[in-house]
Amino acid sequence: MERIRCELLKNKIMSAEKAADLIMNNCLVGTSGFTPAGYPKAVPIALAKRADKGDKIQIDLFTGASVGHELDGLLSEKGIIRRRYPYQTNNNLRNSINNGIVKYNDMHLSNSAQYLKYGFLGKLDFAIIEAVAITEDGGIVPSTSVGNSNVIVECADKVIVEINVSQPAELEGIHDIYAINKPPFTEHIPIKNASDKIGTTYIPCDPEKIAAIVVTDIEDTTNPIAPIDETSEKMAENLISFLKSEVKCGRLPKNLLPLQSGVGSVANAVLGGLRYSEFENLDFYSEVFQDSALDLLESGKLRIASAASLTISPERIKYFLNNISKYKDKIILRPQEISNNPEIIRRLGVISINTAIEVDIYGNVNSTHIMGNKMMNGIGGSGDFARNAYISIFTTPSTALKGKISSVVPFVSHVDHSEHDVMVIVTENGVADLRGISPRERAELIIDNCAHNDYKEMLRDYYSRASQDAKGAHTPHLLSEAFSWHERYIQTGTMI
Amino acid sequence: MERIRCELLKNKIMSAEKAADLIMNNCLVGTSGFTPAGYPKAVPIALAKRADKGDKIQIDLFTGASVGHELDGLLSEKGIIRRRYPYQTNNNLRNSINNGIVKYNDMHLSNSAQYLKYGFLGKLDFAIIEAVAITEDGGIVPSTSVGNSNVIVECADKVIVEINVSQPAELEGIHDIYAINKPPFTEHIPIKNASDKIGTTYIPCDPEKIAAIVVTDIEDTTNPIAPIDETSEKMAENLISFLKSEVKCGRLPKNLLPLQSGVGSVANAVLGGLRYSEFENLDFYSEVFQDSALDLLESGKLRIASAASLTISPERIKYFLNNISKYKDKIILRPQEISNNPEIIRRLGVISINTAIEVDIYGNVNSTHIMGNKMMNGIGGSGDFARNAYISIFTTPSTALKGKISSVVPFVSHVDHSEHDVMVIVTENGVADLRGISPRERAELIIDNCAHNDYKEMLRDYYSRASQDAKGAHTPHLLSEAFSWHERYIQTGTMI
Repeated sequence: MERIRCELLKNKIMSAEKAADLIMNNCLVGTSGFTPAGYPKAVPIALAKRADKGDKIQIDLFTGASVGHELDGLLSEKGIIRRRYPYQTNNNLRNSINNGIVKYNDMHLSNSAQYLKYGFLGKLDFAIIEAVAITEDGGIVPSTSVGNSNVIVECADKVIVEINVSQPAELEGIHDIYAINKPPFTEHIPIKNASDKIGTTYIPCDPEKIAAIVVTDIEDTTNPIAPIDETSEKMAENLISFLKSEVKCGRLPKNLLPLQSGVGSVANAVLGGLRYSEFENLDFYSEVFQDSALDLLESGKLRIASAASLTISPERIKYFLNNISKYKDKIILRPQEISNNPEIIRRLGVISINTAIEVDIYGNVNSTHIMGNKMMNGIGGSGDFARNAYISIFTTPSTALKGKISSVVPFVSHVDHSEHDVMVIVTENGVADLRGISPRERAELIIDNCAHNDYKEMLRDYYSRASQDAKGAHTPHLLSEAFSWHERYIQTGTMI
Repeated sequence: MERIRCELLKNKIMSAEKAADLIMNNCLVGTSGFTPAGYPKAVPIALAKRADKGDKIQIDLFTGASVGHELDGLLSEKGIIRRRYPYQTNNNLRNSINNGIVKYNDMHLSNSAQYLKYGFLGKLDFAIIEAVAITEDGGIVPSTSVGNSNVIVECADKVIVEINVSQPAELEGIHDIYAINKPPFTEHIPIKNASDKIGTTYIPCDPEKIAAIVVTDIEDTTNPIAPIDETSEKMAENLISFLKSEVKCGRLPKNLLPLQSGVGSVANAVLGGLRYSEFENLDFYSEVFQDSALDLLESGKLRIASAASLTISPERIKYFLNNISKYKDKIILRPQEISNNPEIIRRLGVISINTAIEVDIYGNVNSTHIMGNKMMNGIGGSGDFARNAYISIFTTPSTALKGKISSVVPFVSHVDHSEHDVMVIVTENGVADLRGISPRERAELIIDNCAHNDYKEMLRDYYSRASQDAKGAHTPHLLSEAFSWHERYIQTGTMI
């Protein structure tokens, strides 16, 4: 096994089943993985088998962000996950969370490492980390994501490494691992440009802590990207014309500032639109490198891409990984404590572009809850970026469910990004630039520029009655009707 | 006038009336001032007189934070203020804002400097800065606050300086002015400890930009501090016992980490409680230095206090200013772009303590709006600190208006700090530690530990019906009742 370069550790190689047996009931387990990329698979599958055999085993699970079916799906199906931090996108797990079976704490991704390091979640018993290699000194070379892996290794009592031979060994060198000390010993993070490398290419780890090494070849199950539709294209057009006008007004340099883009099909489509724009020499300082960033890189538009994970669609991942050497000097994978760090985001002046579930007429954004009750995925890194961005942009199609849901509502049913954090809203209908204006002005602008035609009159009606009724209101609301659109949808299946 | 040490500028001395005449209709004016401290008074009074004489004059007003009556009160009374950024606490102005006469953009205080520098608010025509002196090179030595003054001077076309001889010349040396370059040229801010000084003792200013110097002796009108009542004392006790237990668990060092405390009587009382605690060698890294911090300093508990403003109560300000040399080496006044900067707050691991208007059972906090409609003051720096704090704490008495309003409600009527940003809630009844737990767990904890006895059963009733009705809900809500408590208060004058 030439991927294990530390002689000492070769005797730690064992089967996934044996490694899974090490994990005790009631423990806190941290794993690699950020978006379904670079998460462990063999040991979780073996853990699920223990449950099948009647073993009583429950764990609290901490990851970088979302992980694939073999971890979140399978373990929640078997009732193994008791608590879950800090983010997820899995269907099985989502149901368990919404049914109250799994206790989910939906965190800002940049904060999650701190929660672990500061001891807010208790002692971390186990780390399970997918790697492409182990260095001579026991250093762990991650695979397609870094996420919280370095902090998990630092905090865990024992470490299980999954060497995944389906991940190319050539990934080594793409990572930049840097540890932040706890206060009062924290230093500044010496990144001045998205391209700066400041750390090691591996996660330092005392070999003594490594309890097991499992060799596997199970591939990452990344998510397919939906084809780009007309709505997304229009949103991309609107975004680009907004950015052009900012350059024209002298508020942005010609090659913009480093871009961040949320995860998922809409975000992918919107960012992808830049490929056909006049912008060049772009930098990308984000959390996830997905297909659209790859397109920008291949088209020569992108100078550098910094992220915490590579999540390329199933159609393109093979080619990408087989040709990783070609891309390696233009991509940097960092810990999410660095990729999502307010210090760096503000210093670089990142332009953040994130997707909203719904926005309200005053510019508050819901990114997490369906009809105020059901958890969709989580806030992820959207807050880390939006709050510290040079310009914070939220995109959403103006309607959902074939027009039955308006994405512009009187009052969002859950607030993840408050009016103070949202500078620009983009839908397929237009752009609302909310910088510096009052709530009443925002309401008119959002309704006029962003709402769908089918809902404009209803929104105007709410706003005008609220303004009249609520004399002396900075933010006019009719509290008795604030959620009536959501209630109507729940009762009738449509907001109209 | 020995306070003006730049010979070139002595011919710029003129009356407040003449200086006020320079200000044109429809311009954007930035002034010094952060809390009613260090704001210009003579020129605003003269501006108000122009309106009295029938001059048509309207301005957009940008400050550090709240300012005194001579500026916000008088100018809003005369209809001179058209737009206002980024924070206010004045009664006249508040009414004008709520009536839609003044367009108010309520901003995170750390972001306001960026809005100005990045050109998001348009060109800044005038700066009016209160100072204690002008240096040989035209440098402006601020008085009792820094706030946004340095950025305002940097961005303004013309600068009017009010030399206030009622402010002691000995304030010189207390300020630490440091400018942050715009992206892509931003560097790290080299502060590692609350006590680090990194800049100049004056605001650098090209003498050519100084259009007028007005000499005045009008004193700051600071706000009186309400006496500490039993409720505040209990909140302070609860806070201190929480901090003690964090130290015991090894999650905080013995002398804690730098403290931030919000402004106002409740915050003052809560922080003041530390005076009688076992904690020593404390650091203060906050935005406002008020009476309680002075108490801590005098009792020897505080090593250093870093803030953007000094706002001592009318009873104590005279003694304080007359003895400023005694305090000067223990107090640093910084620009709010530095005092409230996420980079520094996270690096130092600040413990943030801010006051909520209301909290909901899931841990969302309203800091700005009364009954969802009326603006109270603004978010101020609470978001800057809470989001980047080592531990973010919100305090509120469990009821307001003699029990007629519950400060714990089913759904806050405005969200300024989302569930993702609120770690600990403290009322006089107890502490809810929300770190790492799910919304359902949070609801039970907040109701049990923080709500007032008179409202506990009503809250439990809401939560239990929501949990039953809304099967499959991560965050159980009955949307039709979410704001019913607020509606009931509006209709009947009580939430019961």
